[in-house]
Amino acid sequence: MDLGIASPSDPWSVMAITLFVALLCACIVIGHLLEESRWMNESITALAIGICTGVVLLLTTNWRKSRILVFSEDLFFNYVLPPIIFNAGFQVKKKQFFRNFMTIMLFGAAGTMISFFIISLGALGLVRRLDIGLLDIGDYLAIGAIFSATDSVCTLQVLNQDETPLLYSLVFGEGVVNDATSIVLFNAIQNFGQAHMDVVVVIRFFANFFYLFLTSTALGAFAGLFSAFIIKKLYFGRHSTDREVALMILMAYLSYMLAEFLNLSSILTVFFCGIVMSHYTWHNVTESSRITTKHAFATLSFIAEIFLFLYVGMDALDIEKWKFVSNSPGKSIGVSSILLGLVLLGRAAFVFPLSFLSNLTKKSPDEKISFKQQVTIWWAGLMRGAVSMALAYNQFTRSGHTQLRGNAVMITSTITVVLFSTTLFGLMTKPLIRLLLPSSQKHQGDMPSEPSSPKSFMQPLLGNEHESEFDAGGQTIPRPTSLRMLLSKPTHTVHHYWRKFDNAFMRPVFGGRGFVPVLPHSPTEQNAHP
Amino acid sequence: MDLGIASPSDPWSVMAITLFVALLCACIVIGHLLEESRWMNESITALAIGICTGVVLLLTTNWRKSRILVFSEDLFFNYVLPPIIFNAGFQVKKKQFFRNFMTIMLFGAAGTMISFFIISLGALGLVRRLDIGLLDIGDYLAIGAIFSATDSVCTLQVLNQDETPLLYSLVFGEGVVNDATSIVLFNAIQNFGQAHMDVVVVIRFFANFFYLFLTSTALGAFAGLFSAFIIKKLYFGRHSTDREVALMILMAYLSYMLAEFLNLSSILTVFFCGIVMSHYTWHNVTESSRITTKHAFATLSFIAEIFLFLYVGMDALDIEKWKFVSNSPGKSIGVSSILLGLVLLGRAAFVFPLSFLSNLTKKSPDEKISFKQQVTIWWAGLMRGAVSMALAYNQFTRSGHTQLRGNAVMITSTITVVLFSTTLFGLMTKPLIRLLLPSSQKHQGDMPSEPSSPKSFMQPLLGNEHESEFDAGGQTIPRPTSLRMLLSKPTHTVHHYWRKFDNAFMRPVFGGRGFVPVLPHSPTEQNAHP
Repeated sequence: MDLGIASPSDPWSVMAITLFVALLCACIVIGHLLEESRWMNESITALAIGICTGVVLLLTTNWRKSRILVFSEDLFFNYVLPPIIFNAGFQVKKKQFFRNFMTIMLFGAAGTMISFFIISLGALGLVRRLDIGLLDIGDYLAIGAIFSATDSVCTLQVLNQDETPLLYSLVFGEGVVNDATSIVLFNAIQNFGQAHMDVVVVIRFFANFFYLFLTSTALGAFAGLFSAFIIKKLYFGRHSTDREVALMILMAYLSYMLAEFLNLSSILTVFFCGIVMSHYTWHNVTESSRITTKHAFATLSFIAEIFLFLYVGMDALDIEKWKFVSNSPGKSIGVSSILLGLVLLGRAAFVFPLSFLSNLTKKSPDEKISFKQQVTIWWAGLMRGAVSMALAYNQFTRSGHTQLRGNAVMITSTITVVLFSTTLFGLMTKPLIRLLLPSSQKHQGDMPSEPSSPKSFMQPLLGNEHESEFDAGGQTIPRPTSLRMLLSKPTHTVHHYWRKFDNAFMRPVFGGRGFVPVLPHSPTEQNAHP
Repeated sequence: MDLGIASPSDPWSVMAITLFVALLCACIVIGHLLEESRWMNESITALAIGICTGVVLLLTTNWRKSRILVFSEDLFFNYVLPPIIFNAGFQVKKKQFFRNFMTIMLFGAAGTMISFFIISLGALGLVRRLDIGLLDIGDYLAIGAIFSATDSVCTLQVLNQDETPLLYSLVFGEGVVNDATSIVLFNAIQNFGQAHMDVVVVIRFFANFFYLFLTSTALGAFAGLFSAFIIKKLYFGRHSTDREVALMILMAYLSYMLAEFLNLSSILTVFFCGIVMSHYTWHNVTESSRITTKHAFATLSFIAEIFLFLYVGMDALDIEKWKFVSNSPGKSIGVSSILLGLVLLGRAAFVFPLSFLSNLTKKSPDEKISFKQQVTIWWAGLMRGAVSMALAYNQFTRSGHTQLRGNAVMITSTITVVLFSTTLFGLMTKPLIRLLLPSSQKHQGDMPSEPSSPKSFMQPLLGNEHESEFDAGGQTIPRPTSLRMLLSKPTHTVHHYWRKFDNAFMRPVFGGRGFVPVLPHSPTEQNAHP
């Protein structure tokens, strides 16, 4: 009834926001100073600052509280996650993403299932022996779903779209599809967790997955196309460039919330909305709106990411949760170790076999996933983050029985796994990529349209160039290899027909590069030549 | 303890957000379609859509509820107001603002006091006779403070900085200073409302006002300078343009929240932070960051404004509040009419005398406020908006005695006054300006640095040109009239010494136009010439 926002008009809430914003500023400045470091990244800095603040708070409040805010699922899913995922879709290299679409689907759907079964069975077999308290079969299945959820936000932080485009699109794309799978799994478990598994259930499960995937994608695409159509048709740039930007932000957010409301995978929806918006809508707006949206979306996403890691770091020290496990620290460590091991195993169990399968369908050695790349994919997707935490809170603090020891142990173990995987695996990813793929900067050969100027390596991940300029369509740049590519693979044929359809029907209706009306008062001149 | 955001993980909150975002989109589209209308503006559209939605909700829920969210002071002051006021400071014509600084202070401080006394005394004399219930003397003084608060957000909507720069800076500047006065008044009343008025109280009151004004301004200026210094010193543009934008947004918000935390006038703080940021920080960032911040701040402010009016419109129909007054509709109408009359009278009582005083100090007839302009200033500042509503809620729903009839009547009367003044006075302002000041487009003569190309009239209020380019400093453009101006008025002497100081000390340290390091990878070329 109140937008999810209560009104405790107390000075404590003002102080909490003030402190939190100050910490965010500190994270940005420190992250900037550590930019040259080969180990650190912004998320680990934020995590560390969050933990340090927690310690300071613990000491100043006499071990009573360590956090200035409570981890709230609603805050996370309604306000923090949407800008991150939308921006990822908006800035993703579309060509690279769609070229690897089948592999991404294989990893995200089949891979997550494999991982889910291994972690669930492993937890059932190993964790049960530790006698940590009352957990039923549904809880073990939920553990499988919780720890199968790759953290796409972490992936964005450790992989660089410009340096390792193939890995980025595979691991990040997997993370997005994986979300749909995890949600279906999790809902399926919460709905009929105790029911016996028979063929009908399995069929219903898969039908549910495909329904969710298709409707979520369609909703995102529809929202993107609608925004493109309305901005082109009503010619918003005529009056105000701010109105265009506002409409893009609100339509994207609307698609996310609508998906939430309809119980779809809102992450998938907003991701595809971002893709469609960068392909159509972005070309329909004025030049200043283009620059603004590109950077404003990246900035919002950046702030949301730092916020998230700061939040998780601060929440990790919550004294309440650790009280329940303090009398048996060994068990908590045991459960965390088992879960970490299962995460490692579960991911290995699908990355290597599925990469092998995927390689069978590719003919050119350039497109095959080498063993070293497989190792990197395995490693880079090991991180568990805020999605896992949110799901764990949902499962183990539901219906008020947080006080049960089994639930408390699961919450603290989840925090341990999240912190451990984010810091250790996160810290190791950059050096690992440098070790395993020293030639990664030459791998850009598989992206013929990317101008390989040295400048692009100096740019940040979500840098200055809007890649869709080069990635999408591309009908204006004749490519010598297009005939060979067209004949060599069915994916390319699909892409060819898509491009034909795009040029013949979609772009004339929805706008896009080359189909934008000429704006008389283009602000480019005003701004670029002051 | 929880950032002011609760977590009622219910589908109703998701639905409320979805509906609200959809309505915001509708407001933008309809506002765009009505752009050419000479009567309507975005805020009235949003208000109308809010009321219509309220009616639909009332009908569909069988007269049980009319709103999807509760008006929350925290939401308004912590999240909606900061972007609006910051953007106003960021985009204000600084030269125009500082030239009229004394008049603005006179209107904002002395004028608000006059208005406060007239409304308080009038309410005490007239409303008391209506026998609406138990209201003590503190309540009547609070009524004076509540209805002296000019709505700066409405002013932004109805006045155009490009068409009527003098009026805009006077009325809007007054609205900002007015806020500090209202807060001092309101706090003074809530703290020692019942105490007897003696000389000590009056002296303490004025001391408090100056303390509040100076510290709030200093805090805002400090936050702006700190952001300029850190961005220049650490050379953020080297790595990431998004980090610059994020830091500017967060520092501005931090200054606001810090002022809230220290019980200062956060509106004044964030307004001056915006001014300082546009004078220094804005020049230290990369070209894309400049375009992005300019439009992103305007967009955020735009969304916040529409949100606010939609919110007020929807809240106005809350059935709970009207139940208490339904048995005596005459009294509510009577109180509202009296208050409206007092608002009109209170404003007339200071605008005309103070304009006369202000004109006495000016020699050039160009700088004097003509009678027609005085009428426009009187009229354009009559609107009462969300600040009045927030203060009214604070006063009359405190300590849970909403159920008292007197309080209920005051809440409904406030809503009536807000709705009536915003719609009627808002609707009438544009035609009034056109009627009284048909030559307003020629009045740009008093702004020698403004290029008076016809283009600027086609631009929206917060349009494409960053005026500080022309307004601030100006040492690179030699002006033939500068000597005459320097000799003619002391304000200009202050301005002259400020400029010397600015160029000799401030700009070399904090950056600013002409003192920006050359960025090697300036994104201008990349973006402007794709």
